Amino acid sequence: MNNSIKIVTIGGGSSYTPELMEGFIKRYKELPISEIWLVDIEDGKEKLEIVGELAQRMWDATPYPVKVITTLNRREALKDADFVTTQFRVGLLDARIKDERIPLLHGMLGQETNGAGGMFKAFRTIPVMKEIVEDMKELCPEAWLINFTNPSGIITEAVIKHFGWKKCIGLCNVPVISMMNEPKVIGKQTSELNYQFAGLNHFHWHRVFDEEGREVTGQLIDHINEKSGGTPANIYQAEFSLELLHSTNLLPCGYHRYYYLEKEMLEHSLEEFRQGGTRAEQMKAVEASLFEIYKNPDLNKKPEELQKRGGAYYSEAACECINAIYNNKGIHMVVSTQNNGALTCLEPDSVVEVSCLISAKGATPMAWGDMGSFEKGQLQIMKAMEECTISAALSGDYGMALQAFTINPLIQKGGEAKQVLNELLVAHEKYLPQFKEKIAELKNQGVETKDPVVADLMKNGY
Amino acid sequence: MNNSIKIVTIGGGSSYTPELMEGFIKRYKELPISEIWLVDIEDGKEKLEIVGELAQRMWDATPYPVKVITTLNRREALKDADFVTTQFRVGLLDARIKDERIPLLHGMLGQETNGAGGMFKAFRTIPVMKEIVEDMKELCPEAWLINFTNPSGIITEAVIKHFGWKKCIGLCNVPVISMMNEPKVIGKQTSELNYQFAGLNHFHWHRVFDEEGREVTGQLIDHINEKSGGTPANIYQAEFSLELLHSTNLLPCGYHRYYYLEKEMLEHSLEEFRQGGTRAEQMKAVEASLFEIYKNPDLNKKPEELQKRGGAYYSEAACECINAIYNNKGIHMVVSTQNNGALTCLEPDSVVEVSCLISAKGATPMAWGDMGSFEKGQLQIMKAMEECTISAALSGDYGMALQAFTINPLIQKGGEAKQVLNELLVAHEKYLPQFKEKIAELKNQGVETKDPVVADLMKNGY
Amino acid sequence: MNNSIKIVTIGGGSSYTPELMEGFIKRYKELPISEIWLVDIEDGKEKLEIVGELAQRMWDATPYPVKVITTLNRREALKDADFVTTQFRVGLLDARIKDERIPLLHGMLGQETNGAGGMFKAFRTIPVMKEIVEDMKELCPEAWLINFTNPSGIITEAVIKHFGWKKCIGLCNVPVISMMNEPKVIGKQTSELNYQFAGLNHFHWHRVFDEEGREVTGQLIDHINEKSGGTPANIYQAEFSLELLHSTNLLPCGYHRYYYLEKEMLEHSLEEFRQGGTRAEQMKAVEASLFEIYKNPDLNKKPEELQKRGGAYYSEAACECINAIYNNKGIHMVVSTQNNGALTCLEPDSVVEVSCLISAKGATPMAWGDMGSFEKGQLQIMKAMEECTISAALSGDYGMALQAFTINPLIQKGGEAKQVLNELLVAHEKYLPQFKEKIAELKNQGVETKDPVVADLMKNGY
Amino acid sequence: MNNSIKIVTIGGGSSYTPELMEGFIKRYKELPISEIWLVDIEDGKEKLEIVGELAQRMWDATPYPVKVITTLNRREALKDADFVTTQFRVGLLDARIKDERIPLLHGMLGQETNGAGGMFKAFRTIPVMKEIVEDMKELCPEAWLINFTNPSGIITEAVIKHFGWKKCIGLCNVPVISMMNEPKVIGKQTSELNYQFAGLNHFHWHRVFDEEGREVTGQLIDHINEKSGGTPANIYQAEFSLELLHSTNLLPCGYHRYYYLEKEMLEHSLEEFRQGGTRAEQMKAVEASLFEIYKNPDLNKKPEELQKRGGAYYSEAACECINAIYNNKGIHMVVSTQNNGALTCLEPDSVVEVSCLISAKGATPMAWGDMGSFEKGQLQIMKAMEECTISAALSGDYGMALQAFTINPLIQKGGEAKQVLNELLVAHEKYLPQFKEKIAELKNQGVETKDPVVADLMKNGY
Repeated sequence: MNNSIKIVTIGGGSSYTPELMEGFIKRYKELPISEIWLVDIEDGKEKLEIVGELAQRMWDATPYPVKVITTLNRREALKDADFVTTQFRVGLLDARIKDERIPLLHGMLGQETNGAGGMFKAFRTIPVMKEIVEDMKELCPEAWLINFTNPSGIITEAVIKHFGWKKCIGLCNVPVISMMNEPKVIGKQTSELNYQFAGLNHFHWHRVFDEEGREVTGQLIDHINEKSGGTPANIYQAEFSLELLHSTNLLPCGYHRYYYLEKEMLEHSLEEFRQGGTRAEQMKAVEASLFEIYKNPDLNKKPEELQKRGGAYYSEAACECINAIYNNKGIHMVVSTQNNGALTCLEPDSVVEVSCLISAKGATPMAWGDMGSFEKGQLQIMKAMEECTISAALSGDYGMALQAFTINPLIQKGGEAKQVLNELLVAHEKYLPQFKEKIAELKNQGVETKDPVVADLMKNGY
Repeated sequence: MNNSIKIVTIGGGSSYTPELMEGFIKRYKELPISEIWLVDIEDGKEKLEIVGELAQRMWDATPYPVKVITTLNRREALKDADFVTTQFRVGLLDARIKDERIPLLHGMLGQETNGAGGMFKAFRTIPVMKEIVEDMKELCPEAWLINFTNPSGIITEAVIKHFGWKKCIGLCNVPVISMMNEPKVIGKQTSELNYQFAGLNHFHWHRVFDEEGREVTGQLIDHINEKSGGTPANIYQAEFSLELLHSTNLLPCGYHRYYYLEKEMLEHSLEEFRQGGTRAEQMKAVEASLFEIYKNPDLNKKPEELQKRGGAYYSEAACECINAIYNNKGIHMVVSTQNNGALTCLEPDSVVEVSCLISAKGATPMAWGDMGSFEKGQLQIMKAMEECTISAALSGDYGMALQAFTINPLIQKGGEAKQVLNELLVAHEKYLPQFKEKIAELKNQGVETKDPVVADLMKNGY
Repeated sequence: MNNSIKIVTIGGGSSYTPELMEGFIKRYKELPISEIWLVDIEDGKEKLEIVGELAQRMWDATPYPVKVITTLNRREALKDADFVTTQFRVGLLDARIKDERIPLLHGMLGQETNGAGGMFKAFRTIPVMKEIVEDMKELCPEAWLINFTNPSGIITEAVIKHFGWKKCIGLCNVPVISMMNEPKVIGKQTSELNYQFAGLNHFHWHRVFDEEGREVTGQLIDHINEKSGGTPANIYQAEFSLELLHSTNLLPCGYHRYYYLEKEMLEHSLEEFRQGGTRAEQMKAVEASLFEIYKNPDLNKKPEELQKRGGAYYSEAACECINAIYNNKGIHMVVSTQNNGALTCLEPDSVVEVSCLISAKGATPMAWGDMGSFEKGQLQIMKAMEECTISAALSGDYGMALQAFTINPLIQKGGEAKQVLNELLVAHEKYLPQFKEKIAELKNQGVETKDPVVADLMKNGY
Repeated sequence: MNNSIKIVTIGGGSSYTPELMEGFIKRYKELPISEIWLVDIEDGKEKLEIVGELAQRMWDATPYPVKVITTLNRREALKDADFVTTQFRVGLLDARIKDERIPLLHGMLGQETNGAGGMFKAFRTIPVMKEIVEDMKELCPEAWLINFTNPSGIITEAVIKHFGWKKCIGLCNVPVISMMNEPKVIGKQTSELNYQFAGLNHFHWHRVFDEEGREVTGQLIDHINEKSGGTPANIYQAEFSLELLHSTNLLPCGYHRYYYLEKEMLEHSLEEFRQGGTRAEQMKAVEASLFEIYKNPDLNKKPEELQKRGGAYYSEAACECINAIYNNKGIHMVVSTQNNGALTCLEPDSVVEVSCLISAKGATPMAWGDMGSFEKGQLQIMKAMEECTISAALSGDYGMALQAFTINPLIQKGGEAKQVLNELLVAHEKYLPQFKEKIAELKNQGVETKDPVVADLMKNGY
């Protein structure tokens, strides 16, 4: 790799971008970047320019001669890139609003990653990601693709297994949050503990050992219901059953609450919804105010308000991963990569999220071995759901989308779930060309959501 | 095998027994039985005697010199048995009433096979089955164990994999019902079609081919929502989505409605419950009236009323299976047996319910090959649930029981599910010695059901 | 399928054809054939005509109106075929002479199926088989392909897994020979025993049970070194170690002698070779005299001399297989088909040779389950050898051919084995277009065999 | 772990011990050892005392207060040990002489690790290792067992899988030798390259990447036939076929010559044997002279002559492994450990030799993923051979020993191989109590070796 790195960020107009800049600035001495290209689409042009200018001001406030270029021309940006990061959101936060509100109106979780919402995010994102990979094959065939677009595991599986781009690593901040915040509850520091993670994105477990090789998983379980900060801020912290966790002797991730505490999480989401809002809508408001702040021409560093945005450590993870590859560091990170046997209960060519060594040749997963029946069965059905989702996203096959909905543990199966699927298809028509014919048929049958917020968005062309 | 077969039926006091007798009578020329021992426990003594006398009258009405012996002494009965059939119900129908009413009061399915109720039936049955197998090892080491006690797949897995008794075949009437009733909807007879089944007990799919090798699965799917009689009478026939089924190109079993149509099935069960009854209570009434009929000393054949009992073809399957083994027939039957690779997505040593050849050396499963993601994921989580259930049943480990509850797709996970588990444990105290300590602890904490019917039963010592 | 079956036999000029005719004649009432097309290539034209005329005379001697057509135009023959049988030999027996003599001159087994010879037969046959399947896709997309061309398992794997033609069944007479001849050594008849086979073509084992389900494998092992006729006539019957066989409790096939008795078999082959001949040369002489007999215009049935040709029951197996498919018989046959889990130690999409049910929808393998370490390790390396062989045959990759040679247990690995590979490539130049460049390079380096017989053949353009 | 480490070395009288001392001395600042117990048996007492005194002199020449204790009482030594290293040789070098000479006299490789000799070393060692583990369970249940006794992979599998001692790591110097010596041939240093190894002990491959993630495996293959020092000194360096290696794109280990160059290696061994000696006999002479040197009371460091002994880096590997565990280093080492999915073509509970991270909780294998057919088939038969060997070693079952011999690729199967097995059993009678009955039977049949050297040893009671 050369000594003047070219970074390309697809979805560069994201409010996260300043965090990414901060991460690169902090690592500049190890990571001699020359250019950062922020790419976005027409609809995101205004935000792209705002954030691009802030990004350049941030670099200008350092001694480093890094140039930030904003563009709507993805192919121009990708030419000879060294690292491509993807953090785009097809349909922006308005799409997430639909993802969450439509299921909730039917009494089901929207859940933007593994639930109905997450499946639709995959339906929208995978065709775009396919185009990106095709461009990369032509324009930067040696580049690494660092994906943080959610649902990160599903997207990464599409890229590696279906589009054949092996130099792809999927990132998530959930494991980082655990590793940063948990140790203190037992009076330890991160560096004093050995972490071993395994599972799928937003569906993994971990075990922890101290410096003398003694397992401290049980001690950490005892503290799991405390507000340690080990769970992402966006997840309602219903209380885990300690008896269940001790029985498994594994620390779940925050998202496991949707599975182990299905009833409590659903009730909380419905309550929030009735109270007048979804997480998507809160995010939209936060973003709007962030961009107001970003516009300030005197601002030349990451504003504190961004911290509240959620997604803590996401960019940290991305910068650290790029650094580890570029400098052949051989460090431990928890990323989505090809299984290769690390989890024996899933196929070797599936993408999993596990403890890896990150070095110049990418991510090498560490073998976890067999899981107990409890974890195994859950992982297998979640992977099957991911496979059906990807298959439907690639083919536009309605029956396959129904299969995905029917085996998703977060969806109460039956006629009403099918209605939710139908309403989501219609609501996302603009971003689902692969389902075009089915959507036309559904519209002919008069399928439409009764949610007023979504109806309004659609009236306004979103 | 000798020419005077000794059959032993554990749970011989069952109302099904006359059907079994009819099946043996019909096959006597091929199956020269000399003695049938009906075994039951003290609590079932009265029923045992009634049904034993009827059984003898049935044989006496034939030219065949078969002796029916009733006994409470299982070991005496097992001595030198050739075939042992198990159809007992630990705790009788009163236990099933608890299995169904307690979850329903909390808004969950009881479901006596794969739901909370089925798991508790396994908890009660497995320790007894262990004793039976231990006796058999000593007293009739060459005998075949033909199990029809539900949950049939789970019990059969315990017997084969955990107790090491390989000469065990698990039976179920669901596949037989399909094969007997479906063909007519497309104007065919059973003998004209080739059936291939694969999956788990109460959770299998099938494909069908005609005499020229053409697949007719799709045609049968088109008729699946008609009242063809292809679904067991005890299952509410909510309408399958044909789009889903055609997409999988597999015929589900009737029990799949609980999974594909979760919402509809739950609502129907809750409605029935609110209307004042569960299937268990209906069954109890039916049984009482059946035994009144059985008492009639002039009755010497299977009374017509038994037909309505449900469980059609169960005994037919048992007699046919015994016949196929004894006469080395090599016929196709769908039974629970060791997988051996027939389903590649499950472990070779798991028990599965698949199309088999039944001959003198038992059941040889036919290889099905790979399933699609949709079926694979579901099979894997169901098998995991079965494994956790067996593990909890064997160990009395409460955490493992929680694991089983938490991955069971028919249970809405969370604190209330745990409460259901706790109430069921307390309600079934008498038959769950392995959970003794945990039950004492729960009782100390004041755990008890609020269901008045169950409370009454318990007051009366059930 | 219609009522006037069209059969096409590729390699119809084979000396086996009269046997095939006899098999069809015997089954005509069940199998109403209207036309039999015998296809061959220019080099085999004379033999094709001789055998075609005999075949027609055989039918004319029956009351059945079957027409035998000989042709060099494969595509014309394939049009609307119902069953296609393949029994051709690329390069005729002269190629087999090279396959056997070249390795033997270097002190290695030629072994026309699993040894160096068999690999080269696969190299020559697979490209031709690919063309046949391409023609079938176009001209008779519903036809069954019944392959008896050796190495039968390798060819069948290429057809099913690589060319995607699922309606293919690979046949071999070795299991039939066992089942026909073994039972008598323990005073039984075939119909009284249950056979279960599993493994690969020319590398399978079997277990046998009597009518009461008792295993008699051990009894049959005791007789295995007797001249029972259970081993194909072409295999030297070196004595198996009974201690080894009893330890495995499996009956090996005749070809296992090459593996269990490597030294004895090699010495015997070398001795035969020194005595002046290989099996290929004997066969060539036998064939020549058979065709003299076939020419007799008064001959209208299979001549007795054909029996001595070896390959007993091959045609019997083919006719019986076709009959079982056409009439949906559901009978037990041992054939090469897609594994689908029947052998858990091999991939589900590999082709294996196992006990199957043959019915209108083809072969359904019976699940065998796990093998012991001894059999498992051998099966796995043999399958790996087959995979390398197919890969080399398809790609013409010399390195892959070297890999195949290096893991083949019948070849003593090292520089001399490479020399054998090289000499065989040069000797078979005419039939190995995929290796064209490498062969040119080898010839430039002066690679040629020193065997005078082969050198003579080559001088004469073979 | 405490701050005064107790090390126990079983087979402490080995000539390697000074190297081990040197390794510990070099690492003392990180690894605060207080006591080193050297354990041996009566037959090795003299050597134990010589080497024990030298070891103590070596420590006395340092500033470190380490006490070396020699003992024949293994249980006394094991009490409260922190690390136990095993480097013993049951039957000493005389046993190895038999292992090598008996097969060679029959024209077969002795090969002290994976050949007939290695299997017999396993037969002798496994029962002793079982006793050691039983003692450890009682006396030092928290200790790590670092095994370097050959065949290291087989012994480690017995310890981990059969004796249930999970805290065991098997070491070998072969990967270390590669990593130390190879890089220079392409002008690199070890620290500049990333190594990834996978396979079995003495049967593994590796791939190498440079600091920028580019694969340099192909470049290293080009140099493999040079005398780089990358192959252990005891292996004759017959020339690999570069075409074969490039085709696999994997670097083989030195021992692969026995498999890829079977003929050349066998001829070389037979030539050496004819010239009057085996490696075992050379070693015996070297050892005798080493002990003469060790006796010198002025010697207080590792003598240079030991270097020539072979086994370079063995002790280095052991000390480094212990250091990495004690100090939770998280470094890369290639060791034998439980597979856990690292190699998908072998069972998760098999022991494999792969790239691992070594930290306080032991070895975590890195997932390699799928192998090509060529490597997969070989690994699977080698693991099967290991399994049969362990099974025979544990049970003393002669049939299983025959199975192991019959699938070992280094043995020419057949009657003469069986004769070799029989002669080895008789020759090692003293150390094979588990085969007692079979040996008596063989002796009755007059089985004995004709090798004069072995006959002499036996006459003298060895």
